[in-house]
Amino acid sequence: MDRFDQLLATVIARRSADPASSYVAKLTAKGRAKLAQKLGEEAVEVVIAAVADDRAGLVSESADLIFHLALLLADAGLTFDDIRAELARREGVSGIDEKAGRKG
Amino acid sequence: MDRFDQLLATVIARRSADPASSYVAKLTAKGRAKLAQKLGEEAVEVVIAAVADDRAGLVSESADLIFHLALLLADAGLTFDDIRAELARREGVSGIDEKAGRKG
Amino acid sequence: MDRFDQLLATVIARRSADPASSYVAKLTAKGRAKLAQKLGEEAVEVVIAAVADDRAGLVSESADLIFHLALLLADAGLTFDDIRAELARREGVSGIDEKAGRKG
Amino acid sequence: MDRFDQLLATVIARRSADPASSYVAKLTAKGRAKLAQKLGEEAVEVVIAAVADDRAGLVSESADLIFHLALLLADAGLTFDDIRAELARREGVSGIDEKAGRKG
Repeated sequence: MDRFDQLLATVIARRSADPASSYVAKLTAKGRAKLAQKLGEEAVEVVIAAVADDRAGLVSESADLIFHLALLLADAGLTFDDIRAELARREGVSGIDEKAGRKG
Repeated sequence: MDRFDQLLATVIARRSADPASSYVAKLTAKGRAKLAQKLGEEAVEVVIAAVADDRAGLVSESADLIFHLALLLADAGLTFDDIRAELARREGVSGIDEKAGRKG
Repeated sequence: MDRFDQLLATVIARRSADPASSYVAKLTAKGRAKLAQKLGEEAVEVVIAAVADDRAGLVSESADLIFHLALLLADAGLTFDDIRAELARREGVSGIDEKAGRKG
Repeated sequence: MDRFDQLLATVIARRSADPASSYVAKLTAKGRAKLAQKLGEEAVEVVIAAVADDRAGLVSESADLIFHLALLLADAGLTFDDIRAELARREGVSGIDEKAGRKG
Protein backbone atom coordinates (compact mmCIF):
# COMPACT_ATOMS: atom_id res chain seq x y z
CA MET A 1 0.00 0.00 0.00
CA ASP A 2 1.35 3.40 -0.93
CA ARG A 3 2.44 5.58 1.98
CA PHE A 4 -0.15 8.25 1.14
CA ASP A 5 -2.96 5.67 1.19
CA GLN A 6 -1.59 4.32 4.45
CA LEU A 7 -1.68 7.84 5.85
CA LEU A 8 -5.29 8.25 4.76
CA ALA A 9 -6.20 4.87 6.32
CA THR A 10 -4.65 6.03 9.60
CA VAL A 11 -6.54 9.31 9.40
CA ILE A 12 -9.85 7.54 8.76
CA ALA A 13 -9.23 5.17 11.67
CA ARG A 14 -8.35 8.04 14.02
CA ARG A 15 -11.32 10.26 13.21
CA SER A 16 -13.36 8.46 15.84
CA ALA A 17 -10.56 8.33 18.42
CA ASP A 18 -10.54 10.33 21.66
CA PRO A 19 -9.96 14.02 20.78
CA ALA A 20 -7.88 14.30 23.96
CA SER A 21 -5.20 12.03 22.53
CA SER A 22 -5.80 12.37 18.79
CA TYR A 23 -5.01 15.46 16.72
CA VAL A 24 -7.03 13.97 13.84
CA ALA A 25 -10.12 13.49 16.02
CA LYS A 26 -9.76 16.90 17.65
CA LEU A 27 -9.38 18.82 14.41
CA THR A 28 -12.07 16.82 12.62
CA ALA A 29 -14.52 17.58 15.44
CA LYS A 30 -14.07 21.29 14.71
CA GLY A 31 -15.64 20.84 11.32
CA ARG A 32 -14.92 21.22 7.64
CA ALA A 33 -14.01 24.92 7.72
CA LYS A 34 -11.32 24.32 10.34
CA LEU A 35 -9.85 21.45 8.31
CA ALA A 36 -9.80 23.68 5.24
CA GLN A 37 -8.22 26.49 7.24
CA LYS A 38 -5.39 24.24 8.41
CA LEU A 39 -4.71 23.10 4.84
CA GLY A 40 -4.51 26.73 3.79
CA GLU A 41 -2.10 27.49 6.62
CA GLU A 42 0.15 24.57 5.73
CA ALA A 43 0.20 25.74 2.11
CA VAL A 44 1.43 29.15 3.28
CA GLU A 45 4.27 27.37 5.09
CA VAL A 46 5.14 25.40 1.94
CA VAL A 47 5.22 28.69 0.01
CA ILE A 48 7.58 30.27 2.54
CA ALA A 49 9.91 27.25 2.70
CA ALA A 50 10.00 27.14 -1.11
CA VAL A 51 10.82 30.82 -1.51
CA ALA A 52 13.46 30.63 1.23
CA ASP A 53 14.95 27.64 -0.60
CA ASP A 54 14.77 25.67 2.64
CA ARG A 55 14.83 22.10 1.31
CA ALA A 56 14.35 20.35 4.65
CA GLY A 57 11.55 22.77 5.44
CA LEU A 58 9.96 22.15 2.07
CA VAL A 59 9.88 18.40 2.72
CA SER A 60 8.49 18.85 6.23
CA GLU A 61 5.85 21.41 5.24
CA SER A 62 4.86 19.36 2.19
CA ALA A 63 4.32 16.38 4.50
CA ASP A 64 2.11 18.60 6.69
CA LEU A 65 0.22 19.72 3.58
CA ILE A 66 -0.39 16.12 2.44
CA PHE A 67 -1.40 15.17 5.98
CA HIS A 68 -4.02 17.91 6.14
CA LEU A 69 -5.16 17.11 2.61
CA ALA A 70 -5.76 13.56 3.88
CA LEU A 71 -7.89 14.97 6.72
CA LEU A 72 -9.94 16.97 4.24
CA LEU A 73 -10.35 14.07 1.80
CA ALA A 74 -11.44 11.78 4.64
CA ASP A 75 -13.99 14.36 5.77
CA ALA A 76 -15.47 14.47 2.26
CA GLY A 77 -15.44 10.69 1.82
CA LEU A 78 -12.75 10.97 -0.85
CA THR A 79 -9.39 9.24 -1.27
CA PHE A 80 -6.03 9.82 -2.93
CA ASP A 81 -7.29 7.42 -5.62
CA ASP A 82 -9.88 10.03 -6.58
CA ILE A 83 -7.03 12.47 -7.18
CA ARG A 84 -5.05 9.83 -9.06
CA ALA A 85 -8.08 9.14 -11.26
CA GLU A 86 -8.42 12.86 -12.01
CA LEU A 87 -4.72 13.07 -12.93
CA ALA A 88 -5.07 9.98 -15.14
CA ARG A 89 -8.13 11.45 -16.81
CA ARG A 90 -6.25 14.64 -17.67
CA GLU A 91 -3.30 12.66 -18.99
CA GLY A 92 -5.69 10.69 -21.17
CA VAL A 93 -7.56 13.68 -22.58
CA SER A 94 -4.79 15.95 -23.72
CA GLY A 95 -1.58 15.21 -21.92
CA ILE A 96 -1.19 16.69 -18.47
CA ASP A 97 1.07 19.46 -19.73
CA GLU A 98 -0.92 20.62 -22.75
CA LYS A 99 -1.42 24.36 -22.46
CA ALA A 100 -4.80 24.08 -24.18
CA GLY A 101 -6.08 21.87 -21.41
CA ARG A 102 -5.22 24.38 -18.74
CA LYS A 103 -6.62 27.67 -17.62
CA GLY A 104 -3.34 29.32 -16.50
CA MET B 1 4.83 3.26 -10.60
CA ASP B 2 2.45 5.29 -8.48
CA ARG B 3 0.44 7.93 -10.33
CA PHE B 4 2.00 10.75 -8.28
CA ASP B 5 5.51 9.56 -9.16
CA GLN B 6 4.45 9.28 -12.80
CA LEU B 7 3.20 12.85 -12.62
CA LEU B 8 6.52 14.00 -11.18
CA ALA B 9 8.42 12.11 -13.90
CA THR B 10 6.33 13.90 -16.54
CA VAL B 11 6.96 17.24 -14.88
CA ILE B 12 10.72 16.62 -14.76
CA ALA B 13 10.74 15.61 -18.42
CA ARG B 14 8.74 18.67 -19.44
CA ARG B 15 10.80 21.26 -17.57
CA SER B 16 13.13 21.52 -20.54
CA ALA B 17 10.35 21.51 -23.16
CA ASP B 18 9.39 24.51 -25.28
CA PRO B 19 7.63 27.06 -23.02
CA ALA B 20 5.36 27.88 -25.96
CA SER B 21 3.75 24.45 -25.78
CA SER B 22 4.47 23.40 -22.21
CA TYR B 23 2.83 24.90 -19.13
CA VAL B 24 5.46 23.16 -16.96
CA ALA B 25 8.33 24.72 -18.90
CA LYS B 26 6.68 28.14 -19.01
CA LEU B 27 5.91 28.30 -15.30
CA THR B 28 9.27 26.81 -14.31
CA ALA B 29 11.07 29.46 -16.36
CA LYS B 30 9.42 32.13 -14.21
CA GLY B 31 11.30 30.90 -11.19
CA ARG B 32 10.79 29.48 -7.74
CA ALA B 33 8.65 32.33 -6.37
CA LYS B 34 6.14 31.95 -9.20
CA LEU B 35 5.92 28.18 -8.65
CA ALA B 36 5.33 28.80 -4.95
CA GLN B 37 2.72 31.44 -5.74
CA LYS B 38 0.78 29.03 -7.95
CA LEU B 39 0.82 26.36 -5.23
CA GLY B 40 -0.55 28.94 -2.79
CA GLU B 41 -3.29 29.89 -5.24
CA GLU B 42 -4.31 26.29 -5.81
CA ALA B 43 -4.48 25.77 -2.04
CA VAL B 44 -6.91 28.70 -1.80
CA GLU B 45 -9.07 26.96 -4.40
CA VAL B 46 -8.96 23.71 -2.40
CA VAL B 47 -10.03 25.65 0.69
CA ILE B 48 -12.99 27.21 -1.13
CA ALA B 49 -14.13 23.92 -2.70
CA ALA B 50 -13.87 22.24 0.71
CA VAL B 51 -15.90 24.89 2.52
CA ALA B 52 -18.52 24.94 -0.26
CA ASP B 53 -18.72 21.14 0.08
CA ASP B 54 -18.11 20.88 -3.67
CA ARG B 55 -16.82 17.29 -3.92
CA ALA B 56 -16.03 17.36 -7.64
CA GLY B 57 -14.30 20.69 -7.17
CA LEU B 58 -12.35 19.33 -4.21
CA VAL B 59 -11.03 16.46 -6.34
CA SER B 60 -10.16 18.77 -9.23
CA GLU B 61 -8.50 21.46 -7.10
CA SER B 62 -6.63 18.80 -5.08
CA ALA B 63 -5.27 17.41 -8.36
CA ASP B 64 -4.14 20.95 -9.27
CA LEU B 65 -2.53 21.28 -5.85
CA ILE B 66 -0.62 18.00 -6.22
CA PHE B 67 0.39 19.00 -9.76
CA HIS B 68 1.87 22.29 -8.58
CA LEU B 69 3.48 20.56 -5.61
CA ALA B 70 5.18 18.30 -8.17
CA LEU B 71 6.45 21.38 -10.01
CA LEU B 72 7.87 22.77 -6.78
CA LEU B 73 9.44 19.47 -5.72
CA ALA B 74 11.04 19.07 -9.14
CA ASP B 75 12.44 22.59 -8.92
CA ALA B 76 14.05 21.78 -5.57
CA GLY B 77 15.36 18.40 -6.74
CA LEU B 78 12.97 16.60 -4.39
CA THR B 79 10.47 13.78 -4.98
CA PHE B 80 7.25 12.44 -3.48
CA ASP B 81 9.46 9.76 -1.93
CA ASP B 82 11.06 12.47 0.21
CA ILE B 83 7.60 13.29 1.53
CA ARG B 84 6.81 9.59 2.01
CA ALA B 85 10.03 9.18 3.97
CA GLU B 86 9.13 12.11 6.19
CA LEU B 87 5.66 10.65 6.82
CA ALA B 88 7.22 7.25 7.60
CA ARG B 89 9.71 8.88 9.96
CA ARG B 90 6.90 10.58 11.89
CA GLU B 91 4.93 7.34 12.06
CA GLY B 92 8.03 5.63 13.43
CA VAL B 93 8.85 8.20 16.06
CA SER B 94 5.56 8.68 17.84
CA GLY B 95 2.66 7.69 15.65
CA ILE B 96 1.52 10.22 13.10
CA ASP B 97 -1.46 11.24 15.20
CA GLU B 98 0.24 11.70 18.56
CA LYS B 99 -0.64 15.13 19.88
CA ALA B 100 2.72 15.40 21.62
CA GLY B 101 4.52 15.14 18.33
CA ARG B 102 2.63 18.03 16.83
CA LYS B 103 2.76 21.76 17.22
CA GLY B 104 -0.96 22.51 16.60
CA MET C 1 -12.15 61.26 2.79
CA ASP C 2 -9.52 58.66 3.51
CA ARG C 3 -7.96 57.02 0.47
CA PHE C 4 -9.24 53.56 1.51
CA ASP C 5 -12.81 54.87 1.80
CA GLN C 6 -12.41 56.58 -1.57
CA LEU C 7 -11.28 53.27 -3.01
CA LEU C 8 -14.32 51.52 -1.56
CA ALA C 9 -16.62 54.25 -2.95
CA THR C 10 -15.09 53.71 -6.40
CA VAL C 11 -15.54 49.96 -6.08
CA ILE C 12 -19.19 50.34 -5.05
CA ALA C 13 -19.84 52.69 -7.98
CA ARG C 14 -18.15 50.34 -10.45
CA ARG C 15 -19.94 47.16 -9.38
CA SER C 16 -22.77 47.98 -11.75
CA ALA C 17 -20.51 49.11 -14.61
CA ASP C 18 -20.06 47.21 -17.87
CA PRO C 19 -18.03 44.05 -17.13
CA ALA C 20 -16.33 44.53 -20.51
CA SER C 21 -14.61 47.69 -19.31
CA SER C 22 -14.63 47.22 -15.54
CA TYR C 23 -12.51 44.71 -13.63
CA VAL C 24 -14.64 45.36 -10.54
CA ALA C 25 -17.88 44.58 -12.37
CA LYS C 26 -16.40 41.55 -14.10
CA LEU C 27 -14.98 39.98 -10.94
CA THR C 28 -18.04 40.84 -8.87
CA ALA C 29 -20.29 39.12 -11.43
CA LYS C 30 -18.37 35.90 -10.82
CA GLY C 31 -19.64 35.79 -7.28
CA ARG C 32 -18.45 35.78 -3.70
CA ALA C 33 -16.21 32.71 -3.95
CA LYS C 34 -14.23 34.25 -6.82
CA LEU C 35 -13.78 37.52 -4.89
CA ALA C 36 -12.56 35.53 -1.89
CA GLN C 37 -10.24 33.50 -4.09
CA LYS C 38 -8.63 36.64 -5.51
CA LEU C 39 -8.10 38.05 -2.01
CA GLY C 40 -6.40 34.80 -1.04
CA GLU C 41 -4.18 34.96 -4.12
CA GLU C 42 -3.14 38.54 -3.42
CA ALA C 43 -2.28 37.55 0.16
CA VAL C 44 0.04 34.85 -1.21
CA GLU C 45 1.77 37.54 -3.26
CA VAL C 46 2.13 39.76 -0.18
CA VAL C 47 3.67 36.80 1.68
CA ILE C 48 6.18 36.20 -1.11
CA ALA C 49 7.15 39.87 -1.45
CA ALA C 50 7.57 40.10 2.33
CA VAL C 51 9.78 37.01 2.57
CA ALA C 52 11.85 38.14 -0.42
CA ASP C 53 12.25 41.53 1.32
CA ASP C 54 11.00 43.21 -1.87
CA ARG C 55 9.80 46.56 -0.46
CA ALA C 56 8.35 47.92 -3.71
CA GLY C 57 6.63 44.58 -4.26
CA LEU C 58 5.29 44.62 -0.72
CA VAL C 59 3.70 48.05 -1.30
CA SER C 60 2.25 47.00 -4.65
CA GLU C 61 0.91 43.64 -3.46
CA SER C 62 -0.47 45.23 -0.27
CA ALA C 63 -2.35 47.73 -2.45
CA ASP C 64 -3.75 44.78 -4.45
CA LEU C 65 -4.73 43.09 -1.19
CA ILE C 66 -6.55 46.19 0.09
CA PHE C 67 -8.21 46.62 -3.32
CA HIS C 68 -9.57 43.07 -3.27
CA LEU C 69 -10.57 43.44 0.39
CA ALA C 70 -12.62 46.46 -0.74
CA LEU C 71 -14.30 44.28 -3.39
CA LEU C 72 -15.17 41.69 -0.75
CA LEU C 73 -16.41 44.27 1.78
CA ALA C 74 -18.59 45.89 -0.89
CA ASP C 75 -20.04 42.52 -1.79
CA ALA C 76 -20.99 41.91 1.84
CA GLY C 77 -22.38 45.43 2.34
CA LEU C 78 -19.53 46.25 4.73
CA THR C 79 -17.08 49.16 4.85
CA PHE C 80 -13.60 49.93 6.14
CA ASP C 81 -15.39 51.73 8.99
CA ASP C 82 -16.68 48.35 10.15
CA ILE C 83 -13.07 47.21 10.41
CA ARG C 84 -12.07 50.45 12.13
CA ALA C 85 -14.89 49.96 14.65
CA GLU C 86 -13.70 46.41 15.35
CA LEU C 87 -10.13 47.65 15.86
CA ALA C 88 -11.41 50.43 18.16
CA ARG C 89 -13.48 47.92 20.12
CA ARG C 90 -10.43 45.73 20.70
CA GLU C 91 -8.36 48.71 21.76
CA GLY C 92 -11.09 49.66 24.22
CA VAL C 93 -11.51 46.21 25.75
CA SER C 94 -7.98 45.20 26.55
CA GLY C 95 -5.50 47.07 24.43
CA ILE C 96 -4.90 45.75 20.93
CA ASP C 97 -1.65 44.12 21.91
CA GLU C 98 -2.74 42.33 25.07
CA LYS C 99 -1.76 38.69 24.78
CA ALA C 100 -4.80 37.66 26.84
CA GLY C 101 -7.13 39.12 24.27
CA ARG C 102 -5.63 37.11 21.46
CA LYS C 103 -5.82 33.50 20.42
CA GLY C 104 -2.37 33.18 18.85
CA MET D 1 -5.42 60.32 12.81
CA ASP D 2 -7.02 57.49 10.89
CA ARG D 3 -7.65 54.33 12.88
CA PHE D 4 -5.34 52.29 10.62
CA ASP D 5 -2.48 54.75 11.16
CA GLN D 6 -3.19 54.69 14.88
CA LEU D 7 -2.98 50.89 14.75
CA LEU D 8 0.36 51.08 12.97
CA ALA D 9 1.65 53.61 15.52
CA THR D 10 0.69 51.22 18.31
CA VAL D 11 2.38 48.34 16.52
CA ILE D 12 5.58 50.36 16.03
CA ALA D 13 5.58 51.37 19.70
CA ARG D 14 5.03 47.80 20.86
CA ARG D 15 7.72 46.19 18.73
CA SER D 16 10.27 46.90 21.45
CA ALA D 17 7.98 45.89 24.33
CA ASP D 18 8.47 42.79 26.48
CA PRO D 19 7.63 39.72 24.36
CA ALA D 20 6.16 38.15 27.48
CA SER D 21 3.35 40.70 27.57
CA SER D 22 3.23 41.86 23.95
CA TYR D 23 1.97 39.80 21.02
CA VAL D 24 3.50 42.35 18.64
CA ALA D 25 6.94 42.07 20.22
CA LYS D 26 6.75 38.28 20.45
CA LEU D 27 5.73 37.75 16.83
CA THR D 28 8.12 40.40 15.53
CA ALA D 29 11.00 38.69 17.33
CA LYS D 30 10.30 35.55 15.32
CA GLY D 31 11.25 37.33 12.14
CA ARG D 32 9.87 38.38 8.79
CA ALA D 33 8.86 34.91 7.59
CA LYS D 34 6.71 34.34 10.68
CA LEU D 35 5.00 37.72 10.21
CA ALA D 36 4.32 36.85 6.59
CA GLN D 37 3.02 33.43 7.58
CA LYS D 38 0.54 34.95 10.03
CA LEU D 39 -0.73 37.37 7.37
CA GLY D 40 -1.25 34.40 5.04
CA GLU D 41 -3.13 32.53 7.74
CA GLU D 42 -5.40 35.48 8.47
CA ALA D 43 -6.14 35.80 4.76
CA VAL D 44 -7.26 32.16 4.71
CA GLU D 45 -9.66 32.99 7.54
CA VAL D 46 -11.00 36.00 5.62
CA VAL D 47 -11.56 33.72 2.61
CA ILE D 48 -13.47 31.19 4.70
CA ALA D 49 -15.64 33.82 6.44
CA ALA D 50 -16.40 35.40 3.06
CA VAL D 51 -17.41 32.12 1.42
CA ALA D 52 -19.51 31.13 4.44
CA ASP D 53 -21.19 34.55 4.21
CA ASP D 54 -20.36 35.11 7.87
CA ARG D 55 -20.53 38.94 8.08
CA ALA D 56 -19.40 39.24 11.69
CA GLY D 57 -16.58 36.81 10.97
CA LEU D 58 -15.61 38.76 7.86
CA VAL D 59 -15.28 41.96 9.91
CA SER D 60 -13.31 40.23 12.64
CA GLU D 61 -10.97 38.36 10.29
CA SER D 62 -10.48 41.48 8.15
CA ALA D 63 -9.43 43.35 11.30
CA ASP D 64 -6.95 40.53 12.02
CA LEU D 65 -5.69 40.78 8.44
CA ILE D 66 -5.16 44.55 8.69
CA PHE D 67 -3.49 44.09 12.08
CA HIS D 68 -1.00 41.60 10.69
CA LEU D 69 -0.47 43.76 7.60
CA ALA D 70 0.47 46.55 10.01
CA LEU D 71 3.02 44.24 11.66
CA LEU D 72 4.52 43.43 8.27
CA LEU D 73 4.58 47.07 7.13
CA ALA D 74 6.26 48.11 10.38
CA ASP D 75 8.86 45.40 9.94
CA ALA D 76 9.69 46.70 6.47
CA GLY D 77 9.71 50.35 7.55
CA LEU D 78 6.59 51.04 5.50
CA THR D 79 3.26 52.68 6.40
CA PHE D 80 -0.36 52.64 5.27
CA ASP D 81 0.46 55.95 3.56
CA ASP D 82 2.76 54.02 1.21
CA ILE D 83 -0.24 51.89 0.22
CA ARG D 84 -2.43 54.99 -0.09
CA ALA D 85 0.17 56.59 -2.37
CA GLU D 86 0.25 53.47 -4.54
CA LEU D 87 -3.56 53.47 -4.78
CA ALA D 88 -3.51 57.19 -5.65
CA ARG D 89 -0.86 56.62 -8.28
CA ARG D 90 -2.97 53.92 -9.96
CA GLU D 91 -6.04 56.14 -9.86
CA GLY D 92 -4.02 58.88 -11.51
CA VAL D 93 -2.54 56.74 -14.26
CA SER D 94 -5.55 54.99 -15.68
CA GLY D 95 -8.36 54.85 -13.17
CA ILE D 96 -8.17 52.14 -10.58
CA ASP D 97 -10.71 50.00 -12.37
CA GLU D 98 -9.32 50.16 -15.91
CA LYS D 99 -8.94 46.60 -17.17
CA ALA D 100 -5.95 47.64 -19.24
CA GLY D 101 -4.09 48.66 -16.14
CA ARG D 102 -4.52 45.29 -14.52
CA LYS D 103 -3.03 41.90 -15.02
CA GLY D 104 -6.11 39.81 -14.08
